[in-house]
Amino acid sequence: MDEFDLIQRYFHRPLNSSQCVLGVGDDAALIQPTTGKILAVSADTLLEGRHFFADVEPYKLGWKALAVNLSDMAAMGATPKWFTLCLTLPRINETWLSAFSDGLYSAANLYGVALVGGDTTSGPLSISIQILGEVAPKAILRRDGAKAGDDIWLSGATGAAAMAVAHRKGLLVLRDEDLAHACDRLDLPLPRVELGIALGKLANAAIDISDGLVADVGHIASRSGVQARVWFDQIPLPAFSSAALVLPQCHDACLGGGDDYELCFTASPNQRAAIAALAAEIGVPLTRIGEMTAGSGVEILNAEGHPLTSLPQGFNHFS
Amino acid sequence: MDEFDLIQRYFHRPLNSSQCVLGVGDDAALIQPTTGKILAVSADTLLEGRHFFADVEPYKLGWKALAVNLSDMAAMGATPKWFTLCLTLPRINETWLSAFSDGLYSAANLYGVALVGGDTTSGPLSISIQILGEVAPKAILRRDGAKAGDDIWLSGATGAAAMAVAHRKGLLVLRDEDLAHACDRLDLPLPRVELGIALGKLANAAIDISDGLVADVGHIASRSGVQARVWFDQIPLPAFSSAALVLPQCHDACLGGGDDYELCFTASPNQRAAIAALAAEIGVPLTRIGEMTAGSGVEILNAEGHPLTSLPQGFNHFS
Repeated sequence: MDEFDLIQRYFHRPLNSSQCVLGVGDDAALIQPTTGKILAVSADTLLEGRHFFADVEPYKLGWKALAVNLSDMAAMGATPKWFTLCLTLPRINETWLSAFSDGLYSAANLYGVALVGGDTTSGPLSISIQILGEVAPKAILRRDGAKAGDDIWLSGATGAAAMAVAHRKGLLVLRDEDLAHACDRLDLPLPRVELGIALGKLANAAIDISDGLVADVGHIASRSGVQARVWFDQIPLPAFSSAALVLPQCHDACLGGGDDYELCFTASPNQRAAIAALAAEIGVPLTRIGEMTAGSGVEILNAEGHPLTSLPQGFNHFS
Repeated sequence: MDEFDLIQRYFHRPLNSSQCVLGVGDDAALIQPTTGKILAVSADTLLEGRHFFADVEPYKLGWKALAVNLSDMAAMGATPKWFTLCLTLPRINETWLSAFSDGLYSAANLYGVALVGGDTTSGPLSISIQILGEVAPKAILRRDGAKAGDDIWLSGATGAAAMAVAHRKGLLVLRDEDLAHACDRLDLPLPRVELGIALGKLANAAIDISDGLVADVGHIASRSGVQARVWFDQIPLPAFSSAALVLPQCHDACLGGGDDYELCFTASPNQRAAIAALAAEIGVPLTRIGEMTAGSGVEILNAEGHPLTSLPQGFNHFS
């Protein structure tokens, strides 16, 4: 099997996009954009040893590689549509490729995105995906749109994925049921695409939690020129048993753990009822965890209203 | 310096695209596509030890990483517009990054494309670029449009880049002036963007020569369901001294050497005068090297009209 056979066998399924005029197999794919829409473009790399463990199941890796990119589309309010895959493999392992491809296409089919092209090379395992989505000009969610007075909201809960990493690194021990939940969150994240699209009409700013809640809400604050004040006791906790929730690392995981791919967004207090209705409609918990105020940076306030003095830093390559 | 500083310092220059609504720094870039145009999407990875030597000058690497992607746009007849960069670096070396970024932006500015986003991670050196271009529906160049009776054309000449690789690997010795020419072709390729755009009205099929002339004209033949017959003595030779041209490897380099990023295209014989005029207008040599006929595969005919029996294979990862 060579490069061309590999692409033909594992990455050449029927196109699930009527707007894709030409897919895998030419010098470029050809896409008919929707008139009046803005194109959202993003790219993310997953590397062995950095973003995933060497023994991760390839099905889950294929799922996650696409899911983290879908999450970027969600954070812009965009409908994800097409993606390219740059896959670097140390060798051809058909069992691995078949499972990886199944995971990738499972996410692609669930979220309605089409693999339209890419590149396959031989080298240390690395997966770069570039994703394209579309969004109406009035429904764009940016990081820089938050206003003083906005509520800060979080979908779902953060921290479980980081707890799975801590368990796998031997830094703590989770019980089986907690571990299963944490690993699902880490390995098979469910990007909040439907939520992101719906928020286009409701939210002023949004980001996906990939570096950690404090770091990512800090990105909104700095880009918008406001301060984020988050009430620690309002932050939803992961769906762990009480035994896991009292682990000392759980606090840090909620505030600083990346890889959960929830959405953090800000909206005017006038939107509270609409946001509650949206949460019920799409079945995603949405929790008001703070407010934007004049100022800069991030403050996490305890139940007495005092700022926590030591905050976990977000994940940062090279730091 | 951390990941965010690195992006800010080296990959955050003013946007040279009026259609880019939002560039580096949010969850995705936002682009306003041109109404009525088709979007062309392609991606290519360059890996150390596979696509470039470990000691390559970083300026040239930055240039080439973008140039190979620009070449894919040229081969579709598309005007390149925007790109994302997924850069994996073993460590932060500011001298290296500064030169790499200069090379990348030099190509970007020369060809009028904007870096709109991407990802920076820590690991074995790898560069994946995804490029977006636009093309009018009637000006699309595909691999599958060649017809029996079409002329086969080649821009410039192939083989010099492969000779540079052979010299660097110690397989042959080039004189200084030949080496300088060969290395320029390998390290600083000039993708035929202007030519590709102009060919939209003239050619029936096109591909860029990245795997080697025989392999790439074979892709046109197989996708179009015709046979490519190439006259060996009509293939233009690289601009080498006669000493280099008689090296036994030169023959194979012209036929099988990748990395020259010339365009091979087919067109009706009715277009010969227009193609000659285009060559003069844009200053790119265009040579008629063969014809498409009924049948399949590629035949290279010698001066007596007999097929060469041993043809070099194109570059193929994993083969």
